[in-house]
Amino acid sequence: MSAEIICVGTELLLGDILNTNAQFLALELADLGIPHYYQTVVGDNPSRLKQVLAMACDRSAILIFTGGLGPTPDDLTTETIADFFGVPLIEQVDIIEDIARKFAQRGRQMTANNHKQALIPEGAKVLPNPKGTAPGIIWHPRPGLTILTFPGVPSEMQRMWRETAVPYLKGQGWGQQIIYSQTLRFWGIGESALAEKVASFFDLTNPTVAPYASQGEVRLRVSARAPSQGEAIQVIEPVVKQLRQIAGADYFGVDTDTLASVVGQLLTDANQTVSVAESCTGGGLGSMLTAVPGSSDYFLGGIISYSNDVKVSLLGVKSSDLDKWGAVSKPIAQQMALGVRSRLTTDWGVSITGIAGPGGGNESKPVGLVYIGLATPDDRVECFKYNFGRDRDRASVRHWSACYALDQLRRRLLEQYH
Amino acid sequence: MSAEIICVGTELLLGDILNTNAQFLALELADLGIPHYYQTVVGDNPSRLKQVLAMACDRSAILIFTGGLGPTPDDLTTETIADFFGVPLIEQVDIIEDIARKFAQRGRQMTANNHKQALIPEGAKVLPNPKGTAPGIIWHPRPGLTILTFPGVPSEMQRMWRETAVPYLKGQGWGQQIIYSQTLRFWGIGESALAEKVASFFDLTNPTVAPYASQGEVRLRVSARAPSQGEAIQVIEPVVKQLRQIAGADYFGVDTDTLASVVGQLLTDANQTVSVAESCTGGGLGSMLTAVPGSSDYFLGGIISYSNDVKVSLLGVKSSDLDKWGAVSKPIAQQMALGVRSRLTTDWGVSITGIAGPGGGNESKPVGLVYIGLATPDDRVECFKYNFGRDRDRASVRHWSACYALDQLRRRLLEQYH
Repeated sequence: MSAEIICVGTELLLGDILNTNAQFLALELADLGIPHYYQTVVGDNPSRLKQVLAMACDRSAILIFTGGLGPTPDDLTTETIADFFGVPLIEQVDIIEDIARKFAQRGRQMTANNHKQALIPEGAKVLPNPKGTAPGIIWHPRPGLTILTFPGVPSEMQRMWRETAVPYLKGQGWGQQIIYSQTLRFWGIGESALAEKVASFFDLTNPTVAPYASQGEVRLRVSARAPSQGEAIQVIEPVVKQLRQIAGADYFGVDTDTLASVVGQLLTDANQTVSVAESCTGGGLGSMLTAVPGSSDYFLGGIISYSNDVKVSLLGVKSSDLDKWGAVSKPIAQQMALGVRSRLTTDWGVSITGIAGPGGGNESKPVGLVYIGLATPDDRVECFKYNFGRDRDRASVRHWSACYALDQLRRRLLEQYH
Repeated sequence: MSAEIICVGTELLLGDILNTNAQFLALELADLGIPHYYQTVVGDNPSRLKQVLAMACDRSAILIFTGGLGPTPDDLTTETIADFFGVPLIEQVDIIEDIARKFAQRGRQMTANNHKQALIPEGAKVLPNPKGTAPGIIWHPRPGLTILTFPGVPSEMQRMWRETAVPYLKGQGWGQQIIYSQTLRFWGIGESALAEKVASFFDLTNPTVAPYASQGEVRLRVSARAPSQGEAIQVIEPVVKQLRQIAGADYFGVDTDTLASVVGQLLTDANQTVSVAESCTGGGLGSMLTAVPGSSDYFLGGIISYSNDVKVSLLGVKSSDLDKWGAVSKPIAQQMALGVRSRLTTDWGVSITGIAGPGGGNESKPVGLVYIGLATPDDRVECFKYNFGRDRDRASVRHWSACYALDQLRRRLLEQYH
């Protein structure tokens, strides 16, 4: 008994959108302990959708569809599924009323094409959509087979999943034996170096340990299968403890922790504050820090000193040093960090100045060269130099710069108090 | 003759990572005019991978694999494919030398598990990986069937695709009849409202017109099939012109245009500058503006005034008004915009103050309430109030706030000069 995810939409085949729905559903299925071995993407094409459907019915007991429930003519999922099982569509008056009410609330007029969204296969139940206009269905077209459909809009799909599909699946007996995972997160070590250090753990069977890497962050996923979350945690805990010990300060957090949330917790523990002075990241470091709810407790603000004039006027950077060393240099990074810490009266000041590219680089200061300044509570200032390489694009250089700035602050906070 | 994308990795089935590779390859196949009807995700499991392989060989002529080429024991793609076709793996000495060289350059030691990455099926060609250690293959295991493999790391895969796979596929005759698309982008109108306005265009066959929506942005993709890009553009142009006329100012750009890049172009045309004062977005607006290469020509910087003290000390917001109206209010948004424009001496000043949630809201000022201030070159200041709704999460409120701030600036710039 396994589930299968089928995402319908020519926009996915054309590459117009990223398939975030498959990832969300995959995580949710794992949490419920529902095995899931295949994901398929197919276009808004009835005959190919039917081929996929035929294959999926043979190998899986739960088929989860996303996409193709919208009001436009290329939205064909519901009618194609009904046609495959030879069942007629019935117009549901209460769905039309619900759609009309939603349009009225938003001060918009319901359009004729929305009527299509009220057609449901005979015998299927409506899977309500509280946020949007397209409802889904829960349907048993034949014994042992369950079909769930969701719109492609991620926020609508996710809420429908949580509010209706999860209780339904639990009612069917799923979620008894669960797969529970913790994802350990590392910064400042490469994937193969970490993998070599913890190689012996990859042979474990319960829990299992598997490495992943993306955008400079390396992760180890530790997964256990057990009747309850509590028992799974008992299986996982000793392994997690050993992995953390081996990795030392390169380990920064678990699951939904981010470098920013971990820094926030450390600042909160220390009752300290931080401000930022950003050049090449243009606000990205502040944005990461404030992505964390409650960050106003320790983040007071910052100065985006994109132009040299602003570096001088608002951060107190010396004009003569800008002329002498250039904006991307150790002295300027240091003066930016000290300047923002002093102007905003915070315990820590973090600065970033670098060459994000694609232009602006030269032989001595190539694209990817970044200086990070860190003004500390004891009035000292440190500087870290990175060369992220000419191969990295603008977005990567900016992302890595902000992450390394957070990571350096994190390491200093750890040293200070632990 | 069509291609098929097969992404291998239990991490995809577990939901650990987002499948960006499928989107990248989908866009590239469309550009080359190679039809592509299915994408499959399957785990690091030899028997299921072989099932997928068997099915894909029957219906597609080009199989593109990503993932499972790494150094760890769960990386099984190459050996499973070789085993499926009954061909032995051969160790390639030059690959080992290449890997060793790369490790040396990075000042790291090559690890024993990297040797696995040098095994290639007999008869296959190496698809070089200039960035990473895992090479792919180009292989014709039987007549009329081509297999290409890539590592799962997106930056490595993309470079290998562009540098080796694309020239190879063009050499095989692909890229003659192409699909060329333009994606028109809209802000400030809902998907169904726009769809209703342009409904008659959805029946066209060459070019085709299809609508998509995500995170507040609506897009229309206009695609033509033709022997050359020039001829495709001729097919597309009159349709694009009509769609733009119908949408008016809700249309903001095409293809890779972003609200920020369009604002940047308008500022450049007008020879004007902008600065930002950010509260709830914490730097996100500045980060969006500076994501555009060359933004230093018109973006001078900003002040992240997350705390009220910073609003007063660095932006000149009146303490008494903060007490009277609260930080999330029209007077404060206006003073922030005027303050940053004056402090940074720019033509425009844009401010954002709002309640991003999940905490901090109340009856009169709910989560999702956002004020955007716009200080104009003629010393006036405007204010726009939004209520993004309690249903939206912190990330969405912040994203929409920054986008609407850019959109208001864009509309004022358009009115000023066009």
